[in-house]
Amino acid sequence: MGWRRLDSEQLHQGPFLSLHRDRVLRPDGGSGVYDHVAVHDTVRIVTLDDQENVLLVEDDFYLQARRMLHLPGGGTDGEDPAAAGRRELAEEAGLVADRIDHLATLDPLPGVTAARLHLVVATGLSPGAGTPCRDGTEIGMTATWWPLGQAVAAVYTGRITDAGSVAGLLLAVKEERPVHRSDERS
Amino acid sequence: MGWRRLDSEQLHQGPFLSLHRDRVLRPDGGSGVYDHVAVHDTVRIVTLDDQENVLLVEDDFYLQARRMLHLPGGGTDGEDPAAAGRRELAEEAGLVADRIDHLATLDPLPGVTAARLHLVVATGLSPGAGTPCRDGTEIGMTATWWPLGQAVAAVYTGRITDAGSVAGLLLAVKEERPVHRSDERS
Repeated sequence: MGWRRLDSEQLHQGPFLSLHRDRVLRPDGGSGVYDHVAVHDTVRIVTLDDQENVLLVEDDFYLQARRMLHLPGGGTDGEDPAAAGRRELAEEAGLVADRIDHLATLDPLPGVTAARLHLVVATGLSPGAGTPCRDGTEIGMTATWWPLGQAVAAVYTGRITDAGSVAGLLLAVKEERPVHRSDERS
Repeated sequence: MGWRRLDSEQLHQGPFLSLHRDRVLRPDGGSGVYDHVAVHDTVRIVTLDDQENVLLVEDDFYLQARRMLHLPGGGTDGEDPAAAGRRELAEEAGLVADRIDHLATLDPLPGVTAARLHLVVATGLSPGAGTPCRDGTEIGMTATWWPLGQAVAAVYTGRITDAGSVAGLLLAVKEERPVHRSDERS
């Protein structure tokens, strides 16, 4: 059964997002409208050095009106996730990664947007050609290396609230420590 | 320094979301516009029985054009998260929870919306007065009990992609098993 799209109209086109109204048939057969947002996918990068430290950045978020501690990353600008991850890592931390591995692809807010959230792991790090090249929204950004266990603890205490950073760190800690886990059922 | 809001204009008001354009000063002092979406917060419920099984539901998501397996929950309709969790659990599974405990409050897509994602744990379950009362978008929804470890495994295999369900399950597995974890640094 499922949903059916009858038609779609663009209500707004802005620099970063557009708004669309679709006329739909719902799973029960009733008709209605479904407003949704189109925005580039997001990438978040779990950047790990050889001592199992992870890079976290902190900057001012406009809508939350506070500084947020999170994994590096941002909008993909339509690039593939690995390319976007490399670009963001250079821009935000001045680092080049030898490897970018896929960790997960999630749906951050599936009732509002089809945009996806890509989580990647960056390893084999070296300094880039230049210093970080942050944009005008990131001018107060700081970058700090955290022991992975402490970053995960900052998830549990509620200091890290960005959903992509929470999922990335919790997934990475499993990936990093398969032999230490004795509590998995499957 | 941070961001400053100069003014705000509503561009669209729909049944479930509204779109706003703010004129802002960015952290670097430059001026620009910031389009953002206002939508009710989301709640996702980790519903646990006495045998450490967790309730998962599956239904058709319009924007993803596929069925998605996820924790019960949805928009809060402006209620507090515990009340919204109780309502969603009754509507989607016909269950009443004796306890609703806060697990985490996250920012699902912080560059696009200030709406938050509330994760709660429901325990002490009993059948409600009636059968599930699903709305027209949930007509094909199924609900199934999963051993918590298998639900977490479905996160790692990529079957569960809803960010709130991923974070809720990964956080709950830690909450449930503090004495079994030997791999935490802090």
